[in-house]
Amino acid sequence: MKFGGTSMAGTERIRRVAQIVRRQQAAGHEVAVVVSAMSGETDRLVNFCREANPLYDPAEYDVVVAAGEQVTSGLLALHIQALGSKARSWLGWQLPVHTDDAHARARIGTINCEALLASMGTGEIAVIPGFQGLSADGRVTTLGRGGSDTSAVAVAAALGADRCDIYTDVDGVYTTDPRIVAKARKLRHVTYEEMLELASVGSKVLQTRSVSLAMKEGVRVQVLSSFIEADSPPADSLPGTMIVSEEELLEIEGPDMESQLITGIAADRNEAKVTLTRIADRPGAVATIFGPLAAANINVDMIIQNVAKDLGETDVTFTVPIADLARTQALLEEHKATIGYNRIIANGKVAKISVVGVGMRSHAGIAATMFKALADRGINIQTISTSEIKVSVLIDEDETELAVRVLHTAYGLDSE
Amino acid sequence: MKFGGTSMAGTERIRRVAQIVRRQQAAGHEVAVVVSAMSGETDRLVNFCREANPLYDPAEYDVVVAAGEQVTSGLLALHIQALGSKARSWLGWQLPVHTDDAHARARIGTINCEALLASMGTGEIAVIPGFQGLSADGRVTTLGRGGSDTSAVAVAAALGADRCDIYTDVDGVYTTDPRIVAKARKLRHVTYEEMLELASVGSKVLQTRSVSLAMKEGVRVQVLSSFIEADSPPADSLPGTMIVSEEELLEIEGPDMESQLITGIAADRNEAKVTLTRIADRPGAVATIFGPLAAANINVDMIIQNVAKDLGETDVTFTVPIADLARTQALLEEHKATIGYNRIIANGKVAKISVVGVGMRSHAGIAATMFKALADRGINIQTISTSEIKVSVLIDEDETELAVRVLHTAYGLDSE
Repeated sequence: MKFGGTSMAGTERIRRVAQIVRRQQAAGHEVAVVVSAMSGETDRLVNFCREANPLYDPAEYDVVVAAGEQVTSGLLALHIQALGSKARSWLGWQLPVHTDDAHARARIGTINCEALLASMGTGEIAVIPGFQGLSADGRVTTLGRGGSDTSAVAVAAALGADRCDIYTDVDGVYTTDPRIVAKARKLRHVTYEEMLELASVGSKVLQTRSVSLAMKEGVRVQVLSSFIEADSPPADSLPGTMIVSEEELLEIEGPDMESQLITGIAADRNEAKVTLTRIADRPGAVATIFGPLAAANINVDMIIQNVAKDLGETDVTFTVPIADLARTQALLEEHKATIGYNRIIANGKVAKISVVGVGMRSHAGIAATMFKALADRGINIQTISTSEIKVSVLIDEDETELAVRVLHTAYGLDSE
Repeated sequence: MKFGGTSMAGTERIRRVAQIVRRQQAAGHEVAVVVSAMSGETDRLVNFCREANPLYDPAEYDVVVAAGEQVTSGLLALHIQALGSKARSWLGWQLPVHTDDAHARARIGTINCEALLASMGTGEIAVIPGFQGLSADGRVTTLGRGGSDTSAVAVAAALGADRCDIYTDVDGVYTTDPRIVAKARKLRHVTYEEMLELASVGSKVLQTRSVSLAMKEGVRVQVLSSFIEADSPPADSLPGTMIVSEEELLEIEGPDMESQLITGIAADRNEAKVTLTRIADRPGAVATIFGPLAAANINVDMIIQNVAKDLGETDVTFTVPIADLARTQALLEEHKATIGYNRIIANGKVAKISVVGVGMRSHAGIAATMFKALADRGINIQTISTSEIKVSVLIDEDETELAVRVLHTAYGLDSE
């Protein structure tokens, strides 16, 4: 079970989490709980580090910020004990959760669960601070913001857990954002691949990284609401969304599974579109664009190279996070001579709309349905990109909600 | 160097501490710094524990409250780095600081300083969270409130440090409380024994426990003000108070040392006086009084048994902390039959005035001077008790300041 910062913000909320955890134990499960810091606490600690030194040493930053989860793990153990169950905290260095030494963005290696399993076997509930680990040279590491989801999946994998229940601000994964489409349906199941595509296009229910790890390790992840009543039934029978492999989904849903071609529709307004015009159409030209951006740690998403014209020149369009747009433009100006383009056209007022579904693999016409539905409502498609289980288009940002509603209906996703 | 919570409360103050530490390094010293949590932070964390469970598991309490010092140790390392020196934090479990497993009031065993010394040898300033340690079974322990002074002395002992500089809210140890006697003088030196007597009678500059440890380990402790300017000279040349052994004091001050008979005068208003009348004067009678109090963890200080009367009966008077007076009375009532006294007379309106000095060992007349000086001003002495280097009397609480001033003058302690 994993609870985020909102669930751990103060005595009353931690007590409610303790009740939810106990109920799960009462249903016959051995339980390990991964917790975040109280909401706001990590920001407070990060701020102290920035004030100390804007170019802070990430090793000491990790010592400071890991304290937030240490506090909540001890407190949850105390609350569970107060309700009458055995509990103890296991800090990152105590298990230990081995990581590499990339401080502030460490990656988990192995987790030693021997003592943990022995303790859980005696009926003791294990409480583990998320986000933190131990480097090979014995120093505190952290996984980067939002790393507690990843901690939870990693612990579940190491324990060979039946399930990893992640309690979030939403009660599951929906066919699209319910704030945009009232008729959005909660999905009972979604595959890892679909979840990854949905996560990477703005449906931020889970950290992408935690989903990747779950897929790699085969951990069944359930997304649940942290706002359930403390006396709700245990999570086995709660209607969250289960994230599973395609094989398991096939078993669960039977051969009819592929009748559902599209699983969900996501919208992402945090991208900006950049076009470089009249680039020489020669080998290596594209590398001169994206090399400097990669070096500056700017994450380029869609890349579209238009058909070369007779002139031996081409236009290249790509998207970057809108927060990086100014830096991107500056870098491109700086490397103008090397790249050899004519003009930069930047547009921050775009939205990326994606339809996602494993069912589309075996079906033609998914993209055509999308283009037609949008065209019928006069929505102009600026750019298209596709992957095996996703079709994404860039449109004018003002048309985001309209496009999502149109597509939700076009693919038959609306609830009754 | 050790800095308390007031010195670590927020970015500006930690930066100032970093400057003071750097100045010490610039004077040619290898420096290890022990820090407390930000003032108020430990209370905040303790409060969360109490809210979780008034009868909290001290092992999990330790996990929670140790986080406060973890944060400040990382932050001070960051601040020192920002000023251009190398620094790193060493958490209790990293050195480790071995303790017993008496959670929330652990006692320090050995401290492993190998890695610490190697690091300090390269010019790296070591920052160590006070108050925390590691039990034999690998769990976080804390030393009890105010334990950071003890951590500092223990680290100094383990490192074989030349000196342990403790920065406090006052700038040294005075002949008496300067708020009572304007002419109180700051002592350049004081012996461990004197400091212990002064500390145990209300002069709370240092934790008694840290002074005991310093005496046992022969650590030279200097008390300094944490309110010095960041550009003050290094602590070698600052006029704090040095706490040393009698032998060292003799070396420093020469044979004239004993001309100063009295080192200081302390007043303690936190004691209450209890008298039991007409107790049978038989072997074992006293044990029936103090057995139950000891079992209830009530700390009895002065004990005076008056001369037995012809009747085969005696009065017994003792003092307890005023906070424990009600519990003490209840316990005595409960055991009245066993003890066999006539009446309890309790008085919370008393003050204990003590004159302290190693010089008094070899001099008669110290006590006589005290009694005469008080009598001359009409101050009634209720009870007297003496140790090798201390004479204490109980008087009416209202006469506390008068008595301290009278004695300060009588022993020639007033500054010019």
